[in-house]
Amino acid sequence: MASTQIPQTVKQWNVVAFDGFDGLKFSEQPLPEIGDSQVLVYCQYRDLAIARGRYPNGVTQNVVPGSDGAGTVVAVGKQVTLFKPGDKVLTLFNQGHLGGNLTSQTIATGTGSTLDGVLRSHGAFNENALVRSPFNLTAAEASTLPCAGLTAWNALFGSVDHAVKAGHWVLVQGTGGVSIFALQFAKAAGARVIATTSSPDKVLALKKLGADHVLNYKDDPSWGVTARKLTGGRGVDHVVQVAGAKEMVQSIAAVKMCGAIDIIGFLADRRSESEPGFMSCVTNLFTARGILVGSRVQMEEMIEAVEAHPEALRPVVDQRVFKLEQLREAYEYQWSGQHFSKVVIEID
Amino acid sequence: MASTQIPQTVKQWNVVAFDGFDGLKFSEQPLPEIGDSQVLVYCQYRDLAIARGRYPNGVTQNVVPGSDGAGTVVAVGKQVTLFKPGDKVLTLFNQGHLGGNLTSQTIATGTGSTLDGVLRSHGAFNENALVRSPFNLTAAEASTLPCAGLTAWNALFGSVDHAVKAGHWVLVQGTGGVSIFALQFAKAAGARVIATTSSPDKVLALKKLGADHVLNYKDDPSWGVTARKLTGGRGVDHVVQVAGAKEMVQSIAAVKMCGAIDIIGFLADRRSESEPGFMSCVTNLFTARGILVGSRVQMEEMIEAVEAHPEALRPVVDQRVFKLEQLREAYEYQWSGQHFSKVVIEID
Amino acid sequence: MASTQIPQTVKQWNVVAFDGFDGLKFSEQPLPEIGDSQVLVYCQYRDLAIARGRYPNGVTQNVVPGSDGAGTVVAVGKQVTLFKPGDKVLTLFNQGHLGGNLTSQTIATGTGSTLDGVLRSHGAFNENALVRSPFNLTAAEASTLPCAGLTAWNALFGSVDHAVKAGHWVLVQGTGGVSIFALQFAKAAGARVIATTSSPDKVLALKKLGADHVLNYKDDPSWGVTARKLTGGRGVDHVVQVAGAKEMVQSIAAVKMCGAIDIIGFLADRRSESEPGFMSCVTNLFTARGILVGSRVQMEEMIEAVEAHPEALRPVVDQRVFKLEQLREAYEYQWSGQHFSKVVIEID
Amino acid sequence: MASTQIPQTVKQWNVVAFDGFDGLKFSEQPLPEIGDSQVLVYCQYRDLAIARGRYPNGVTQNVVPGSDGAGTVVAVGKQVTLFKPGDKVLTLFNQGHLGGNLTSQTIATGTGSTLDGVLRSHGAFNENALVRSPFNLTAAEASTLPCAGLTAWNALFGSVDHAVKAGHWVLVQGTGGVSIFALQFAKAAGARVIATTSSPDKVLALKKLGADHVLNYKDDPSWGVTARKLTGGRGVDHVVQVAGAKEMVQSIAAVKMCGAIDIIGFLADRRSESEPGFMSCVTNLFTARGILVGSRVQMEEMIEAVEAHPEALRPVVDQRVFKLEQLREAYEYQWSGQHFSKVVIEID
Repeated sequence: MASTQIPQTVKQWNVVAFDGFDGLKFSEQPLPEIGDSQVLVYCQYRDLAIARGRYPNGVTQNVVPGSDGAGTVVAVGKQVTLFKPGDKVLTLFNQGHLGGNLTSQTIATGTGSTLDGVLRSHGAFNENALVRSPFNLTAAEASTLPCAGLTAWNALFGSVDHAVKAGHWVLVQGTGGVSIFALQFAKAAGARVIATTSSPDKVLALKKLGADHVLNYKDDPSWGVTARKLTGGRGVDHVVQVAGAKEMVQSIAAVKMCGAIDIIGFLADRRSESEPGFMSCVTNLFTARGILVGSRVQMEEMIEAVEAHPEALRPVVDQRVFKLEQLREAYEYQWSGQHFSKVVIEID
Repeated sequence: MASTQIPQTVKQWNVVAFDGFDGLKFSEQPLPEIGDSQVLVYCQYRDLAIARGRYPNGVTQNVVPGSDGAGTVVAVGKQVTLFKPGDKVLTLFNQGHLGGNLTSQTIATGTGSTLDGVLRSHGAFNENALVRSPFNLTAAEASTLPCAGLTAWNALFGSVDHAVKAGHWVLVQGTGGVSIFALQFAKAAGARVIATTSSPDKVLALKKLGADHVLNYKDDPSWGVTARKLTGGRGVDHVVQVAGAKEMVQSIAAVKMCGAIDIIGFLADRRSESEPGFMSCVTNLFTARGILVGSRVQMEEMIEAVEAHPEALRPVVDQRVFKLEQLREAYEYQWSGQHFSKVVIEID
Repeated sequence: MASTQIPQTVKQWNVVAFDGFDGLKFSEQPLPEIGDSQVLVYCQYRDLAIARGRYPNGVTQNVVPGSDGAGTVVAVGKQVTLFKPGDKVLTLFNQGHLGGNLTSQTIATGTGSTLDGVLRSHGAFNENALVRSPFNLTAAEASTLPCAGLTAWNALFGSVDHAVKAGHWVLVQGTGGVSIFALQFAKAAGARVIATTSSPDKVLALKKLGADHVLNYKDDPSWGVTARKLTGGRGVDHVVQVAGAKEMVQSIAAVKMCGAIDIIGFLADRRSESEPGFMSCVTNLFTARGILVGSRVQMEEMIEAVEAHPEALRPVVDQRVFKLEQLREAYEYQWSGQHFSKVVIEID
Repeated sequence: MASTQIPQTVKQWNVVAFDGFDGLKFSEQPLPEIGDSQVLVYCQYRDLAIARGRYPNGVTQNVVPGSDGAGTVVAVGKQVTLFKPGDKVLTLFNQGHLGGNLTSQTIATGTGSTLDGVLRSHGAFNENALVRSPFNLTAAEASTLPCAGLTAWNALFGSVDHAVKAGHWVLVQGTGGVSIFALQFAKAAGARVIATTSSPDKVLALKKLGADHVLNYKDDPSWGVTARKLTGGRGVDHVVQVAGAKEMVQSIAAVKMCGAIDIIGFLADRRSESEPGFMSCVTNLFTARGILVGSRVQMEEMIEAVEAHPEALRPVVDQRVFKLEQLREAYEYQWSGQHFSKVVIEID
C-alpha cells in the first residue's frame, strides 16, 4: 500500500437510528483497512443534497451518510491502477453505476445509504467508485458535481436520441442546483436556454449564467406556452422538469414535437384530475424520461467539459460554507430557501 | 416521361364532405399529370388502417383518402432517379417524414389526409413519398407495412437508446396489426416476447408467430406483474403499449428499470384518478415515448429485415379481402372485431 | 401553382462536352415546367466548390452544373407542402440523400452532376431537394452551407459514436472551407480546437474564429505529436482529415484512443510505403470514417445551429464575389490559392 | 467477509521471466487476502486466448497470467454488493474497462498482464472486474466469452452507428473463436451471414451454425467481390476483419457504401504497396474501426443474449480440454491449427 499523510483516526457521522437528524451520531473511529482494490480518501467537501425523509432505496444500519463529496487520495491498495496518493477525486453517487443503465442491483449501491458515504474525514473506497476531480476547480466547487452536476449532465446528454446539440432550445426550471447546472451545460453545448424563476431578484443571476430568456412563472402561469412562442412556435427540444407533476401541463405546452422532458425528483406529488396522463405522450408526441443521477462514464465526460470551460462551467456555490460538525445548521439553511444553487460542507 | 400501361382514367374515392362514409364519393377521373419529380403508381392494395372519426392533423377538402398502399410504377417524370416503370412500391404514411423526427410541418403531409391517398386506381406521387416493396411479398401482404408495420418497427428500433437487441424482453398487447408486427420483428431481432390476449383461441396463433409466453389479460388482471416474474424479476426492456391509459399501471409493473414504454394510438382515454401520472417515470425509472408511424429511412430498414426473413416476417393478412368499391363493407368487417391482424383492400 | 415574379426565360450554364470549362456553354432557355411536387427557385448565390477534374459519380450530358446554392422560391406545385413563394432556400448536394446513410442509388442524385444544378437563374426542384435557409444569413453566406458547411457538420456530428461534445478536442487542418466550418461548429458545441496552417498570416484569423491553438505544419512536421501534447497526452477526440494520405501519420499521432479521424476529399494520393495502413486502426485503436457531404436531416440540424449562433457561425466568405458569367474567373481565383475560406458567385 | 469452501493455498502460474513458456513458473501459494471491495473466485476454466509473443500493453513482473476465465465466488468483502458466495462469474479482460471507450489508463488494467490473471485455482478480484456467468452454460463454455465472445459482440454491436440489425448482411472470416462467435451473434440478431474458410471440411459446420453462404477463399481469391454479388450488389453492412492487412482489398470490395469494417488482431502485417490505404475510406465510403475486446457493460448485454439463446449461442468448444498443469500442451495444440473455435483449460 502506497501512502502519504495517513491519520490514525477518522471523524465521522453514522446513521444509528432512522429518526432524522436525531438518529445521526458524530464520533471518532479507527482508520478503516484499505483493501487491494481500494483507495483511502481524505474527504474534503461535500455537497448538501436535498434532505430527504427516506432515500429511495433504503439505508443500511450504522452507515456513514453523505452521498457525494470531493477529496484527496492518501493511500492505495496494491491492485489499484487508476489513482495514486495526492490525486484529487470525487465519489460516485451509485457506486455500482459504472456505465450503461441503472439496474435494480446497481441502484442498491448508494454512497451514504447502502455503502458508507462521505460525512467523515477519511474513507476507503473501491477505486471504481471514484473519479478524478477537474484540475481547475476547488474541492468545494467540485463537491457539487457528483449529484447535482451529474443529474443535469445525464438529463441533457444521457440519452442518445435527445442529446442536446448546438442550436437546440432547453427549458430549465428554478434556481436549484440541477437547474443551474443544466443551464450552464446547455449553454456550453451551444444551446439556447429559457429559464424560469418566481423571484425577480434572481433574473439577473440567471442571465449572467447565460440564460437567453427568463420567465417569471408566478406572473405568467402559462410560461410553457410563452416558452414555445419564444422558439418561434416550434417548441423546445428539451425540458429539464424538476417541478412537480402539475407543472407537466406547461412542460408539455413548451416541448417540441418529438422532444424530450426529463423528469427529476423523488417527491411524487399527489395525483389530481388536472394533471396530464401518459396519453399526452402520443397526442403531443414527446418522450418523458425518468432520471436518477448518472453513471461513472457520464461523470468522466462531464469532468472533461468542466475542465474545458473553467469559467462558464464553474459550479455556483452558495456563500455560506459549513463545517462537518455543523451538519444540522447546514440543512436548516438549505431548507430556509435563502440559498442560491449549492450549499457545501467543509469536512476538514 | 418513361412509361408502360398508362390508362386514360382513374377510379377513385374522394372526401367530399366530413360526414363519415357518407362523405366519401366514388368516381372515375382523368389521369393526373406526372411532374418531373413524380412517379405514377398503379395502386394495388391498401391496408385498412384503424377507422378514425377524425385524423389528427385534419383532412383536405376533396382529398383522395387512403393512408397507405402497395402498387406498381407505370411512369416516371424526367428528373426521377429512384424508380423506373415496373418497380413495386409502397407509399409513405407522412410524405414529408423522410428521416429524423416528425415536425409540425412534416406531420401535415399525411397521405390520404393532407395529400391525395391511395383509394384510387392510379396516382402521381413525389418519388420520395415511395419506397420499394420487399421483393418476396405479394402486394396484399406488403400493403400492411406502411402503417402497422412501420409503427411497430419505429416502436422497437426507432429509439437509439432503447433499440431492441438480442436477449431483450418485449411485451406486446393483443392481436392488432401493430402488436403482431412487433411480435414478429422482436423475435427476428433475437428478443424474447411476452404477448397478451383475452381470447384463448388466439394463444396458439401467437405462439406460432414466436411468442415465448402468452398471458390472458382477462383471467390475469395483474398481467404486468406476471410478465415481470417471467423475466426473473428484472422486468421487460420494452413495452409496446397499444392499450388505453388505464393499462399503463400494468405496463409500468412489467417494464425494467430504465426500460421503455412506447405509447401508440390516437384515442386518448378520459383521465381517471387511478391512472398513473408522469412522476412514475422517476419513481419507477422508465422512459415513455409517444409514437406516430415512422420515417422513410426507417421504412427502408424494415424492408431489408422483411426481405431477410420472408417466412418469419411475412405479414399476417386476414382471410377476407375486399374490392375498392367495397370500402364500407371492409370497415364494417374490421369494426366487428372478427379479424386477425390486418384487413386489406384489392384496388384493381 | 402559386407564384410570384416568374420570368419567361432562364440564364444558365450547361455541360455540353466533358472538356473542362471549354465544355461549358452559357445561354438563355425557356423557364422549366413546375411539377406538382416541385418548387421553382430563383437561384441567387452559389458556393464555388473545389473544382474537380471528374465528379465521383459521373455527369449527365447537357446537365446544368453547380452543386449547391441559395435562392428564393418563386412558385410551387399544387402538392407542395414544405415551401411557399418568398421562402429562402438552399439546395441539397445529393437530392436523394434525405436521411440515414448514402447508398449507391442516392449518391447518383447529385445536384449539378446527375440532376440539373444551380448555375442558372431559375430552376425547378423537387421540394425535398430544398431546405429552408437560416433566417439570419445573406444568400451569399448561406450558399456556402450545402457543401462545405454540411461536410464539416457531418464530420463532427454525423456519427453517433463520435459526435463532438462539450469538452472534446478537435483537430482541423488548413483554412479551406470545410476546415473553417469545422472550427466554428466545434467551438459552438463547446469543444477545444487545434488548427493547423502553413501561413503565419492566417494564425490570427484562425484564433479570431476561436481556435485554442494554431500549429504551423511547415515549421513543425510532427504537428500531430504536438497536438497530442497540447491535450495533456490523451489525444484529440476528433480529427477532420482534409490533407492527403501521407498526413495520416500525424493525424494518427494526434488522435486519442478510440477517437475518430474523418477522411474527406476525392483526390486520393498515390500510395507510398511510408503511409500508414489499416492495421494502425487496431494498433492505435481508432476509427477512420469516409465522409461525403451529408443528408437533408443533417442539413436541417446545421441550420438550427447557425440560426442560434449568428455571429460565431457566420460563414466566412472571401471578399471577392463573381457574377454568373464570370465562372471561369471565379475558378481561376480559387485555384490561385489567394482566397480565405469560401468563394461565391452572385447569380443574379 | 461471508464465505464458503475457502482453501488455505492456491495453485498458480506466475510470469517470473519474459522468456515465453520457460519464464512461467507453477507453484502453490498462500491464499490472498480479500479486501472490502473484493471477491474471492474459485477459477474453474479459462479460455486459451491467442498466444502472443508480447501483450500490447506490457506485463507486470511476477504476474499471474491468464486473461479470462470462469469461476465461482467463494467469499466476498464486506462492502461487496454485486455478488455472494456461490455465484458463477466471469472475469473482465481489461478490469478498468467498465463502460464507454477504452483509454490509455484503462487499457493498462489487463487481467493476466498488468493485474493478476486466472491461471491459478483461486484469486481475489475487485467486484467490478467480474460479471455473472450465463446461467445456462457450463464453466468451460462460459470461459470462452470474456475475450473471443466479447470481441465479436463489440465488433457487431459496440458501435451505435453500425450496430448489426435484423436484415443486415455480415461477413466473417475463417473459423477462429471471434469469427465463430460473430457468426452466431449475427444470426441471433436476424442478420444474414457470409462466412469464409479455406477448408472444405469446415463448410458444413459453418452452415450448421447458421451461415447463409460459405466462400472458400483459396478457391476464390476475389471472395469479397463474390460476397457483394451475394447481396445483390449492395454490399455487406459489416465485415469482421480478422485476416491480415492484405485481405482488406477483399473486405473493401465486399462492404456496402457507408458500411463498417471492424479490424481485429494484434499482429500487424508488414506494409506493402498492394495494400489499400486510408483514402479508400472516402473513395469507397466506409468506416474502419479498430477493436480491442470490450467493456463490462457490453459483457452484460452479451450475457443476456446468450441466456436468451441457449442453443444458437452455445459457445463452440474444441473437444480437447487441458488441465492447469498442461498449459504448454494446450498452447501447442492451439498452435498446431487442428482446433475448431476455442480451446479451454480446466483449472481444478
